[in-house]
Amino acid sequence: MADGPVLALDIGGTKLAAGLVDTTGRLLASERTETPATLDAEGLWSTLVALAGRVADLDEVAGVGVGCGGPMRWPDGRVSPLNIPSWRDFPLADRLRDLVPHVPVRVHNDAVAFAVGEHWRGAGRGASNVLGMVVSTGVGGGIVSGGRLVDGSSGNAGHIGHVVVDPDGPACTCGGRGCLEAIARGPAVVRWAMEEGWRPGSRQAATGRHLTADAQRGHPVATAALARAGEAIGIALASVTHLLDLEVVAVGGGLSQAGRLLFDPIETAFRRHARMQFARDVRVVPAALGQEAGIIGAGALVVAPDDRYWSAG
Amino acid sequence: MADGPVLALDIGGTKLAAGLVDTTGRLLASERTETPATLDAEGLWSTLVALAGRVADLDEVAGVGVGCGGPMRWPDGRVSPLNIPSWRDFPLADRLRDLVPHVPVRVHNDAVAFAVGEHWRGAGRGASNVLGMVVSTGVGGGIVSGGRLVDGSSGNAGHIGHVVVDPDGPACTCGGRGCLEAIARGPAVVRWAMEEGWRPGSRQAATGRHLTADAQRGHPVATAALARAGEAIGIALASVTHLLDLEVVAVGGGLSQAGRLLFDPIETAFRRHARMQFARDVRVVPAALGQEAGIIGAGALVVAPDDRYWSAG
Repeated sequence: MADGPVLALDIGGTKLAAGLVDTTGRLLASERTETPATLDAEGLWSTLVALAGRVADLDEVAGVGVGCGGPMRWPDGRVSPLNIPSWRDFPLADRLRDLVPHVPVRVHNDAVAFAVGEHWRGAGRGASNVLGMVVSTGVGGGIVSGGRLVDGSSGNAGHIGHVVVDPDGPACTCGGRGCLEAIARGPAVVRWAMEEGWRPGSRQAATGRHLTADAQRGHPVATAALARAGEAIGIALASVTHLLDLEVVAVGGGLSQAGRLLFDPIETAFRRHARMQFARDVRVVPAALGQEAGIIGAGALVVAPDDRYWSAG
Repeated sequence: MADGPVLALDIGGTKLAAGLVDTTGRLLASERTETPATLDAEGLWSTLVALAGRVADLDEVAGVGVGCGGPMRWPDGRVSPLNIPSWRDFPLADRLRDLVPHVPVRVHNDAVAFAVGEHWRGAGRGASNVLGMVVSTGVGGGIVSGGRLVDGSSGNAGHIGHVVVDPDGPACTCGGRGCLEAIARGPAVVRWAMEEGWRPGSRQAATGRHLTADAQRGHPVATAALARAGEAIGIALASVTHLLDLEVVAVGGGLSQAGRLLFDPIETAFRRHARMQFARDVRVVPAALGQEAGIIGAGALVVAPDDRYWSAG
């Protein structure tokens, strides 16, 4: 575990973020930029290094924590982010070790980093059994149980997007059927709404953001689309709560910006299905850290006490 | 953690078992008896104490581990087993501490003890990420992640019976709908078969055992009833595998005696839904320890290295 401020990186298909996170989880500095879509593997790496240099003196940081889009080889930190085609089996952790020698370097899934951030400093603070989930282009998450991150056998624990909520439901990109992600990810919500007759305004793209705006203006199909996603999320959360005896679920990501239009149907479906007595006090709440959750969680991988978010030694 | 053989107790609505478990997980002695249905709380306690005395010199044991039907207050060990009406908020752990002073006494859910036994010495041996589940009058389970038992906030983690597999499915005793248990528990399987026209032979009770025997003789409705339960189990296991990144699922309990009539439909549904790459190597296998799993797991609560099955301090 690192004993001073660490470099934290959040690497996704649309943005790159770098931050300096201290041992209490404060974000001392941060920078972000769009993920360059046209660059090759080395070009992207150079962009990342330059961004890191703007938030920290790399000779001074006590460690490097990274949340990166999956899939990846964990704990090796060789990454093949779905939305970053130029990185395939890119040795991110090794490259960072060359860049910042003699300090711990730890790379994990970006949804896991989000969940870790929300547990350490966000909506799950003070609880020991927390699910953090992101509802965005995909649906992902991370699990803290007994105060420690759950990794599973290959670092893939937390894939709530592939909990089955409707066995006869829509096909999922994973090859399965009726996964939460197949129903609740932003593009699936938009597609369902368009099939039901919703159209974005002229000059607008058909995005979750525009759908949400229309729902907030009372558009019935847009509202129903969010309700359908919320119901699916609530069902999945009931299953997860029964399985893991959670205290808090923190929901973030673009679609969570819909607020009550999403959270009310989540709550209704969750309470309908989460009936075991021990599930009654579970709180399903909006994530608290906004886009800082991922970066703070990335830092937490190396700087949180007792290595509670890193089991790989 | 205990440093010598421990007393292990397995307390259910139909049977009581006591054993002496050594530090390597061997069962040095064991006794079992039917759970007396007519006795009051103290009468049942006396029966248990007598049974314990037949396997161990209580002055010599290094600890006491118990798997008991739930619900219970954990880690306090005050138990209210659903199928033992005379024990309501019975202070089982405290009574055992009075009986066997100066050694650790640990009480957990019987399905958790089963899972622990299968992880330590059964079908999950050698793996670090294991779900053990029991399909019987109810459907329960326990989770080992990263080599340690997952407890959740109140010791209730592992309730796979209340993972939702069909949101519009049958009502569950928990008050929810479409829980795995509502479809796959023995009495639900039998009821479905009877609704479809199956009848037990003359002088036979309508039990899962007789249903299984008829399925083995090729009765189409009996076979379909087991297949329906297996499909529901396979769907739930896909969700759990995606969530926890498991290596092994060990399935035991009365209904698992149906063998391939249950396991083939489990496998088919599991592979249809567990499509993430990291889920491909998961093995879903019959439990290996038979009725000894619960007693060995109960012992493991106090005697396994590093307190890996007990987080409550």
